[in-house]
Amino acid sequence: MTKLHVGIVGGTGYTAHELLKILLRHPDVNVAFITSESKTGTSVADYFPDLPPDNFLNFKEIDSQNFDSVDVVFLCTPHGESQKIVPQILGAGTKVIDLSGDYRLRTPDSYKNWYKMPHADSPHLGNAVYGLPEIYREQIRQAALVANPGCYPTGALLSLIPLAKSGAIRPEKIFIDAKSGVSGAGKKLTQLAHFVEANENLTPYNAGHTHRHIGEIEQELQTAFNRNIPVVFVPQLVPLNRGILETIYIDRPAVKNQQQILEILKDFYRKEPFVRILDDKLPAIQMAAGTNFCFIGAVYDRETDVLIVVNSFDNLLKGASGQAVQNMNILFNLNETTALI
Amino acid sequence: MTKLHVGIVGGTGYTAHELLKILLRHPDVNVAFITSESKTGTSVADYFPDLPPDNFLNFKEIDSQNFDSVDVVFLCTPHGESQKIVPQILGAGTKVIDLSGDYRLRTPDSYKNWYKMPHADSPHLGNAVYGLPEIYREQIRQAALVANPGCYPTGALLSLIPLAKSGAIRPEKIFIDAKSGVSGAGKKLTQLAHFVEANENLTPYNAGHTHRHIGEIEQELQTAFNRNIPVVFVPQLVPLNRGILETIYIDRPAVKNQQQILEILKDFYRKEPFVRILDDKLPAIQMAAGTNFCFIGAVYDRETDVLIVVNSFDNLLKGASGQAVQNMNILFNLNETTALI
Amino acid sequence: MTKLHVGIVGGTGYTAHELLKILLRHPDVNVAFITSESKTGTSVADYFPDLPPDNFLNFKEIDSQNFDSVDVVFLCTPHGESQKIVPQILGAGTKVIDLSGDYRLRTPDSYKNWYKMPHADSPHLGNAVYGLPEIYREQIRQAALVANPGCYPTGALLSLIPLAKSGAIRPEKIFIDAKSGVSGAGKKLTQLAHFVEANENLTPYNAGHTHRHIGEIEQELQTAFNRNIPVVFVPQLVPLNRGILETIYIDRPAVKNQQQILEILKDFYRKEPFVRILDDKLPAIQMAAGTNFCFIGAVYDRETDVLIVVNSFDNLLKGASGQAVQNMNILFNLNETTALI
Amino acid sequence: MTKLHVGIVGGTGYTAHELLKILLRHPDVNVAFITSESKTGTSVADYFPDLPPDNFLNFKEIDSQNFDSVDVVFLCTPHGESQKIVPQILGAGTKVIDLSGDYRLRTPDSYKNWYKMPHADSPHLGNAVYGLPEIYREQIRQAALVANPGCYPTGALLSLIPLAKSGAIRPEKIFIDAKSGVSGAGKKLTQLAHFVEANENLTPYNAGHTHRHIGEIEQELQTAFNRNIPVVFVPQLVPLNRGILETIYIDRPAVKNQQQILEILKDFYRKEPFVRILDDKLPAIQMAAGTNFCFIGAVYDRETDVLIVVNSFDNLLKGASGQAVQNMNILFNLNETTALI
Repeated sequence: MTKLHVGIVGGTGYTAHELLKILLRHPDVNVAFITSESKTGTSVADYFPDLPPDNFLNFKEIDSQNFDSVDVVFLCTPHGESQKIVPQILGAGTKVIDLSGDYRLRTPDSYKNWYKMPHADSPHLGNAVYGLPEIYREQIRQAALVANPGCYPTGALLSLIPLAKSGAIRPEKIFIDAKSGVSGAGKKLTQLAHFVEANENLTPYNAGHTHRHIGEIEQELQTAFNRNIPVVFVPQLVPLNRGILETIYIDRPAVKNQQQILEILKDFYRKEPFVRILDDKLPAIQMAAGTNFCFIGAVYDRETDVLIVVNSFDNLLKGASGQAVQNMNILFNLNETTALI
Repeated sequence: MTKLHVGIVGGTGYTAHELLKILLRHPDVNVAFITSESKTGTSVADYFPDLPPDNFLNFKEIDSQNFDSVDVVFLCTPHGESQKIVPQILGAGTKVIDLSGDYRLRTPDSYKNWYKMPHADSPHLGNAVYGLPEIYREQIRQAALVANPGCYPTGALLSLIPLAKSGAIRPEKIFIDAKSGVSGAGKKLTQLAHFVEANENLTPYNAGHTHRHIGEIEQELQTAFNRNIPVVFVPQLVPLNRGILETIYIDRPAVKNQQQILEILKDFYRKEPFVRILDDKLPAIQMAAGTNFCFIGAVYDRETDVLIVVNSFDNLLKGASGQAVQNMNILFNLNETTALI
Repeated sequence: MTKLHVGIVGGTGYTAHELLKILLRHPDVNVAFITSESKTGTSVADYFPDLPPDNFLNFKEIDSQNFDSVDVVFLCTPHGESQKIVPQILGAGTKVIDLSGDYRLRTPDSYKNWYKMPHADSPHLGNAVYGLPEIYREQIRQAALVANPGCYPTGALLSLIPLAKSGAIRPEKIFIDAKSGVSGAGKKLTQLAHFVEANENLTPYNAGHTHRHIGEIEQELQTAFNRNIPVVFVPQLVPLNRGILETIYIDRPAVKNQQQILEILKDFYRKEPFVRILDDKLPAIQMAAGTNFCFIGAVYDRETDVLIVVNSFDNLLKGASGQAVQNMNILFNLNETTALI
Repeated sequence: MTKLHVGIVGGTGYTAHELLKILLRHPDVNVAFITSESKTGTSVADYFPDLPPDNFLNFKEIDSQNFDSVDVVFLCTPHGESQKIVPQILGAGTKVIDLSGDYRLRTPDSYKNWYKMPHADSPHLGNAVYGLPEIYREQIRQAALVANPGCYPTGALLSLIPLAKSGAIRPEKIFIDAKSGVSGAGKKLTQLAHFVEANENLTPYNAGHTHRHIGEIEQELQTAFNRNIPVVFVPQLVPLNRGILETIYIDRPAVKNQQQILEILKDFYRKEPFVRILDDKLPAIQMAAGTNFCFIGAVYDRETDVLIVVNSFDNLLKGASGQAVQNMNILFNLNETTALI
């Protein structure tokens, strides 16, 4: 079988690093190029010493001619950059998996609302498929442009959509208390992510209705519930490298029985390789770190009539690059778990 | 001035260690004895090498005669042990500051409900004063037995009581998402606190209506609100040594204005040396770690009509030993901040 | 091709966990059984939630009949236990890769000297091959019993043997300052590895001529140098989960030129997939953690006439389970890097 | 008694933070001003929320008039900056405690050799006293300008000078394997100190004869030994906030007996409040973190004829600001331990 030829744009950050780790061990993939403005010419194996040293890639500049020569391009570009090159790549007949937030929201208005700037490629906004395979697998299969979900929305939506669709919960609003390892803040040097400041610390940030991931979560919940569900969202930085844990509170659930809730989740994900429902305990970050799994557990607290749903997953894998490869596997009819288990 | 003579029972754990650090630098205090069953005879300076080496204490066995010779005894004993010796100490006319959970709940029924065993000293249950100085300072001043609050309740109650009393919030229930450093789990060796398991991890535990601190929080909220307020409480272990951060969600607050909420808190604590209201940002653990401060901040999220109150404090200081010394300072009419700032 | 059938004895610790991760993704291997005394009957997928959930293994008791049915048994048993069952396994005609220290020293006297007890299976001591593939590949290929090296010796020997054999160093003694992540101390609960004690700490232990790994290092250096080289060895526990870094000091090297030293190392390892020589910087733990690589770098300090050689590797992979699978691949003529890159 | 008036120049970094913590609780000190170019006008209590909030300091610009009004100025300026303002401060008749490296080396040549630039205030170089109280207490008492030692030299010199002076060691060279918490790398944002890069990592840096602290160590060892002793020095960054541990190897010591070595150290430091010799174990970082103590332990390894001396101390306290206050206490005839124990 001919190998799939893939390109990566924006290759020096944490998501590109994880993507390379997976793609270089993927038996059906050939990484044709990887770009970086700041590291053009540098050997990828030198830059990421934990990668297999015998890959012969060097970082190169973006060159639109490359887009013709590959089957799919992964965009690890910052928000705002992807929309500048997506038209060109799609124009070359090449598929795109965008890890930035540029194509996750469905309308230019929604994009502008959350990203505080107009979208530069609104024609393609409507064509993008939201790349959450457990919900949109069939659409992904046909897509030219996959908008890989944000890290926080991945766990929140996997936890809530089955409960929404089954009618087990009919909330007025939803509370998500989210905790992320520091790699979620990216490779850019900031005070918040300076070791001495982040270590032995725990910091809420962007509390209130400001984090852009709220837009994604509310958009997808609207589809699942068929009505608008406001989301209370407090993200918090915890002193570890990778992993997210979300504690979700749902007041007065329709189904007031823990076991039934778990059964609904298990039924929904029975055939899913990457979503795992825990029967008798709640998830912890270490279960999921380094894997493409999302773990989900639930407690129904009878005394307060509140359902607590907890999920954990690796923000760089199921929350970014692992999910991106899962989407690639679907797009090209490969075994969905290849290189991911 | 004659120095205050104090004794410590149960001297090898983390709270005793912090207590010693504070008391040994307290100009008005003489530590007369410290007991430990397991370390009887060991030099305290050897056991805790970061303490001033020229204290001449050795751990000794509990000897009831010692209770007569001191003004106050701090109990760093585990739950269930304090109630066995409190009658004896009070009988000697000596005051007690109990850091365990034994005297925090006001009734034998409530104790039995949360601790799953009958109380062995129910006569004194009603005499104990709940040692949260910002709420009960005058009662503490007169007390013979101070029940030092649990770590989680300290922050939760300091955050909520002013809002309750002012009528700013009239909730049906309250959601507390709590995160604690691992010293909160104590010095006892457990899988959960084994370095490789706790590091690069984040673990919810005792979710639902099971953690004993819920009893304290609900008891004190009942007093403040004059009605029963169920508390949803999820504690989580985070990979750092000391510090707690609590993210509290209050649905549909009466006062729907962030600045007003902050003013209410600032008014309430205007003269308090250890509670600090943040104007324009939320607390983080590093602000408070190593201090006796409790920081409180708030965000009113208009889009969801939810008030988010966040607090941070050091679980071993304001959440345990620092607060215990604050109580001692009050009990004996010393400057309340001595040895604590 | 028929798959290789493998068994694992002592399956609940950190090395067994890593071994399973590798073997379950190894295309040529079928894990036939895994034993645990304490967890008999428990599902392996439940116990290690980050493993692929669709493996149908349960921990079982050791049953000697199983030894006939597999091609090779990995022993993840503690020191002293392996020697009790090795005769039985070899007697069944099955190969053994022993991750304990039981067969690493070549003579009963040496074993007794370092382990302070007589060896219970001295007849097989001489047959065991020391499983450092870069040095003993041909002997491993023929072996029935492979003694997988200790973690510290792996890096030390890979760093020193090429320099010894080339004559680049002719030391009177060698200084090894070794730092290990806490997983090196195992899963057993100890004060030293309690989170609050190990975090924000760095602890030397077993300084002086007491650590058993010195025996291995001196034994193999004797072979390489053809004379006895005393080893000064100070191991230190650092607050991270996995990885070892060794800083080795060699006084007055014969070759007094950094570039030549590096060339000697590069020549020696030119065809080795898992040993990588760094040209212009020293190794750090993160380069190697999660991989089967051992990185080596060197600085010649002209002002003091000292050669500093630094290595880093993952104590659970190249220092244990990764190397064990590398040995298995060699033993059964598989591609040496399968499942390891 | 009139309080001592002190000023701090360069007030936003980690050493200034620690200095403030100590000085604000010092009963004999009034902090008259603190400067910062970048934070002029900001409230110190806001910038460092863990400080007592009722200090009324704001960061201000450097104003030479201020130098007249205080008794002593602490310089927390970067290397190269102190030498620009020291003449002015001394000219005002005010004493200086310089925490930078500017006045630690005794000659302009030595300074130029290690700092790669000419010294701008060479006249005062010879007047500065090296501020290691345990060695230079009497000179410090008379000094106008105290050069506070570097962090690494503090532990190394306290460990070695007593052994040098007693003749217990007569080494040809000395090997120092040093490990530092990340606060040692300062508050400046760097890749090396970015949380995700520093966490779960351990990184040697500046190996070989390049770290400027070697100059200090060799200078002071020359005085102690009365001859030149080359120092092999490898500093390494470990993933914790504060603390240094140095493992020092001395080949073929004159005194070949561990107990005698410890006695020599104990004799030397018998009256010292901040240097503590451990009898039966080696130091670990947690013993010393948060204190002004330096712990020293030793092992004589008979099999290799090597003496291993290990020290631990807090790089920001005994290695910087604690020692600076100790020097201030000496300079002004205060109790040397005030505010430090």
